[in-house]
Amino acid sequence: MKKFLITGFSGFVSRYFIEYLEENEIRAFIKGIDVHHPDFNSGTFKHVKCDFERIDLLDKGKVENIIFEFQPDYVLHLASFSSVAFSWKEPNISFQNNTNIFLNLLEAIRKLNIATRILSVGSSEEYGNVDPVDLPLTENHPLRPVSPYAVARVSQELLSKIYATGYGLDILMTRSFNHIGPHQKDVFVVSSFVKQMVEMKYNGAGANKLIAGDTTIIRDFTDVRDVVSAYYMLLTMGKKGEVYNVCNGKGWTLKDIIEKICDALDIDVEIVPNPGLFRPDDNRAIVGSNEKLRNAVKWAPKYTLEDTLNEMIAYWQKQINMA
Amino acid sequence: MKKFLITGFSGFVSRYFIEYLEENEIRAFIKGIDVHHPDFNSGTFKHVKCDFERIDLLDKGKVENIIFEFQPDYVLHLASFSSVAFSWKEPNISFQNNTNIFLNLLEAIRKLNIATRILSVGSSEEYGNVDPVDLPLTENHPLRPVSPYAVARVSQELLSKIYATGYGLDILMTRSFNHIGPHQKDVFVVSSFVKQMVEMKYNGAGANKLIAGDTTIIRDFTDVRDVVSAYYMLLTMGKKGEVYNVCNGKGWTLKDIIEKICDALDIDVEIVPNPGLFRPDDNRAIVGSNEKLRNAVKWAPKYTLEDTLNEMIAYWQKQINMA
Repeated sequence: MKKFLITGFSGFVSRYFIEYLEENEIRAFIKGIDVHHPDFNSGTFKHVKCDFERIDLLDKGKVENIIFEFQPDYVLHLASFSSVAFSWKEPNISFQNNTNIFLNLLEAIRKLNIATRILSVGSSEEYGNVDPVDLPLTENHPLRPVSPYAVARVSQELLSKIYATGYGLDILMTRSFNHIGPHQKDVFVVSSFVKQMVEMKYNGAGANKLIAGDTTIIRDFTDVRDVVSAYYMLLTMGKKGEVYNVCNGKGWTLKDIIEKICDALDIDVEIVPNPGLFRPDDNRAIVGSNEKLRNAVKWAPKYTLEDTLNEMIAYWQKQINMA
Repeated sequence: MKKFLITGFSGFVSRYFIEYLEENEIRAFIKGIDVHHPDFNSGTFKHVKCDFERIDLLDKGKVENIIFEFQPDYVLHLASFSSVAFSWKEPNISFQNNTNIFLNLLEAIRKLNIATRILSVGSSEEYGNVDPVDLPLTENHPLRPVSPYAVARVSQELLSKIYATGYGLDILMTRSFNHIGPHQKDVFVVSSFVKQMVEMKYNGAGANKLIAGDTTIIRDFTDVRDVVSAYYMLLTMGKKGEVYNVCNGKGWTLKDIIEKICDALDIDVEIVPNPGLFRPDDNRAIVGSNEKLRNAVKWAPKYTLEDTLNEMIAYWQKQINMA
């Protein structure tokens, strides 16, 4: 039975990682840590046993204690203040809760000399503004971060490489592109769109006005269940010191997404741009190449965008008791 | 009279920056901050008035107070835990005392909305391992940091760019190559060599064994007085948001340096390699191009390496009362 330490345990990705282990009948003991309590069932399943502890990764002493006591075989580092918008408002808090928390984790593992394999989850935001001719982005593309969040993620990745090469820690890195799915909070754009549009459908409140930022930006969306399968495969089969894009390989504008949700719900919406949601120096288009990941661990995405959006619609219908 | 806030005030570079202002009859009011008290006369000169306050830049509240009270026209950010070797031993402390201290400084300036021009001093270590064919390095060369210290410096530079482009702060950046001169502490390699060899000369203790790390590595050394003139010129004439190499443009092996000191002192030494001083993944050769700096502000180095070494010898002779 392998032991997994999951940071950012109470988040959206973690619950699907547990589900992945359970559904694939992978026996595992999970220690979950987070500053927030999980809002999902995180007890004992048939194949997976979870134990949660509320800690702040900025608290070095506690991080060391957890690592020392649990002696994980794998560390899935999901913890992150992952909002770009928040990072513009509070760059220091964002930086600390991305880069410094990760450094605390690495230092604990290094000092205690624990043999563990670490997956450092990073972000496609690390690439920054890219020329459309360079799409899809491969892992060799230069990193030119354009937000405080993206800088924090690049710093995290650079530290990962130092700990892998300089100290010999067994670390792999991802640059994870946008992921979506049921249970995602509505601070994230697609989840917010689905929620608002489900409300419109059932409230039927006259003109359907959807408040949005720039809907012409292009992003590469992957179903969260495909993301967690990539994480499991990388943890168990990926190559030490390497960085992997985790992405679908296709790009959609936010407008495309809105139209697909409209079709699924059979409604029309008027997009009302809110300049407050436009971000300084935002990336125009991000689409990744997942070739390296596919080749390394034989991963492939299983969910279509339409599948995922339909399940998100069903989720929000249930959430707002309109189903 | 312009107001300069100098972080890392008690260090080696700061005292020469003050001297530069004084010698060039530039009237200035300096607020110096550092965790250590300066060990040089930092009171009132003819043209320059200094005021020192002992603070830790990790203390956000105090940093804000200083900035608010002093309202600097210029910020010369020299504060850094600049030892690569230390960063391998204590990566977390190194990172915090390079990147986090700088972020605190920027955040204070941003939040208080102070119109000030900031020189973010960085390091040639940011370039990492480079191919000899790419020498001398221009500012366009990719950054591939290979030590915790270098990662911290790259993070600092990336944050500088975000604050310049995203928040409109008036920041310029340097990648400063090795600098040397009298008063430099003997934890730095050239100062350590000079000190040891001056002792050998006057102690006459039989076989002259010089304990050293890898003496075949190539570095680009600039006299600290040339460095501070570059900093002043950049602060007053450099272009916002730009990064400048501050370097001599010539490379010497440490062995070259040792030979020059031997010649000046008329002694012979046997170099005894100490594997403990060899660093994991160290850079083989670093030589920079200073063309951008020369073109931007009409800077040129004035001191030859021989001049500098002779003055360092005189300094250490005086220090150990052998003059």
